Amino acid sequence: MVKKMKFRLAFIGFGVVGQGFADILLKKEHELKDRYGFEYEVVAISDMKLGSVYDEDGLDLSRVMNMVNQGDRLEDYPTGIKGWDPLKTIKESNADTIIEVTYTDMKTGGPALEHVRTALKAGKHVVSTNKGPVANAAKELMELADRNGVKYRFEGTVVSGTPTINLAWETLAGCEIKEIKGILNGTTNYILSKMEEGMEYEDALKKAQELGYAEADPTGDVEGIDAQGKVLILSNTVMGADMELEDVAREGITGISLQDVEEAKKEGHRWKLIGSTKKTEGGIEASVGPEKIPMDHPLAGVMGPTNALTFTTDLLGDVTIIGPGAGKMETGFSLLVDLLAINGAMEG
Amino acid sequence: MVKKMKFRLAFIGFGVVGQGFADILLKKEHELKDRYGFEYEVVAISDMKLGSVYDEDGLDLSRVMNMVNQGDRLEDYPTGIKGWDPLKTIKESNADTIIEVTYTDMKTGGPALEHVRTALKAGKHVVSTNKGPVANAAKELMELADRNGVKYRFEGTVVSGTPTINLAWETLAGCEIKEIKGILNGTTNYILSKMEEGMEYEDALKKAQELGYAEADPTGDVEGIDAQGKVLILSNTVMGADMELEDVAREGITGISLQDVEEAKKEGHRWKLIGSTKKTEGGIEASVGPEKIPMDHPLAGVMGPTNALTFTTDLLGDVTIIGPGAGKMETGFSLLVDLLAINGAMEG
Repeated sequence: MVKKMKFRLAFIGFGVVGQGFADILLKKEHELKDRYGFEYEVVAISDMKLGSVYDEDGLDLSRVMNMVNQGDRLEDYPTGIKGWDPLKTIKESNADTIIEVTYTDMKTGGPALEHVRTALKAGKHVVSTNKGPVANAAKELMELADRNGVKYRFEGTVVSGTPTINLAWETLAGCEIKEIKGILNGTTNYILSKMEEGMEYEDALKKAQELGYAEADPTGDVEGIDAQGKVLILSNTVMGADMELEDVAREGITGISLQDVEEAKKEGHRWKLIGSTKKTEGGIEASVGPEKIPMDHPLAGVMGPTNALTFTTDLLGDVTIIGPGAGKMETGFSLLVDLLAINGAMEG
Repeated sequence: MVKKMKFRLAFIGFGVVGQGFADILLKKEHELKDRYGFEYEVVAISDMKLGSVYDEDGLDLSRVMNMVNQGDRLEDYPTGIKGWDPLKTIKESNADTIIEVTYTDMKTGGPALEHVRTALKAGKHVVSTNKGPVANAAKELMELADRNGVKYRFEGTVVSGTPTINLAWETLAGCEIKEIKGILNGTTNYILSKMEEGMEYEDALKKAQELGYAEADPTGDVEGIDAQGKVLILSNTVMGADMELEDVAREGITGISLQDVEEAKKEGHRWKLIGSTKKTEGGIEASVGPEKIPMDHPLAGVMGPTNALTFTTDLLGDVTIIGPGAGKMETGFSLLVDLLAINGAMEG
């Protein structure tokens, strides 16, 4: 393969996901060059907590990671310009590609939406794991990218790096996708799996909290809000809809009792929290809710915190992908695969 | 997206798969142009049984399909040059992309190997569902493509259009793939599924033959030879090996009795014919053979003629894909997705 450019990256946000991605970049630097002709330089990092640094000639990423691991701020980096905020970094740095990994605000898109918009307008590629912008303005941002001849990619916004959006766009290209249906939330799937073993809902939730799958306030997971956001993203980016969060009907798993689980088992079914989005005569219909899945459906066998999606297509019928739904490295990977796709598109 | 070229296609071979692909091209012509900026012209078809026709200005593909469906030969087409053999068509036509869909010869690669080699040397892209060339000369042909600045793609050589090779190359790019393990043969999986329901091997085989899943001589399927070829292809194209068919250890399912199936069931396991290829300290190890899979593994739930593969990776852990393993449209689709990938790589 022929290398076409050396990517100049700016990180907007440098929390768990950003640092996970930086670890991968460092660890795989030589392999990425040899195998994919992919070369990079990190020129800027701007983070709410850690401060910011910009050096047009590139930062020593190993040094940055060492500093961050020791609790230092980016301002302590020996060279470069300090104190640039995200928008200044995006507009005025010489970065050609923005890694948008700030916090997610599903309601409005938050500052991240302006980060992505500004970057695309400035003719810079964006790779991002941030659900906010794509949930609120997928159509606008994808068109903006097209118009400016750059790419906006966000595989990690749905079930971490497990191929989902890229699966639909690339390896299923040319298929009409009629429906996507899946287990999009690991916490609730873990709880339902434990209930399948005879555990009461409250005990299963407590166990999930102990293992770090569920947060102290589990509402976002158990009420289906997290899955609802992912369904919205799939609807607007893969199914061609232009929906808002409220258009995705939602029901959580709190109404499912141990008795329900056992009755389903007797009928050869298994309760799953299913997110789905499908083409109907009246347009795209999207929802999240508990469903009894027959045991011979590939989604029925997906247990614990694992995620899975079934794509129903015109040419291939059903294709199901099963993989991790979260994790520092798993989400970091999504940024890498998106960058490699951009790198590939730059080739002749 | 910006259209970069209009593909000029030549079909080498025009049997079930080639005609299936032609159907898709006709049916999706407008969608492919609107959505992917993909435009094509079929300039030549050369088939052992149907004869051949070449028109540098393009053939009317609908007319060709009507003729073929009525039992006419390609020589009856009103315009163009008749009688060119595959090699002449590849070398002397103005096609820029060759659709290689002649019959498979796993032992030597057959004439198809020379077709692919000749096309790549002439600087023409090749998309193919033919296992022969890639099983016998993957390394040579991939290097030849690289050297000549063209693409050689063959998604359909492993489990039809279900994303497998493209999944590994594109949506898992950047991951180290440590092992691929899967159900690569639908016939044997159907037979084992029926045995799971209590049917004897011989009866299940007969049923598979009635349904058209198994051939009159089922050796290629039940002895694992078909799966062996797919494992070889995955080893040489995804795992970086340079193996021959004999290097893939092979055992079929004929030694599995109904008693074995029932005993496994009691232990919470299920017999599957598993093809696998993995990195070891001594290099790539590849094999096909029956394995007892624990019921909580995603491959255990894959029943009937469906295929599935689990990729074990460094960054994502296990990712499993489940989909069809055969079919006219499903295999035809693989040629389309490969062409669209080439089209995408042609964009800026």
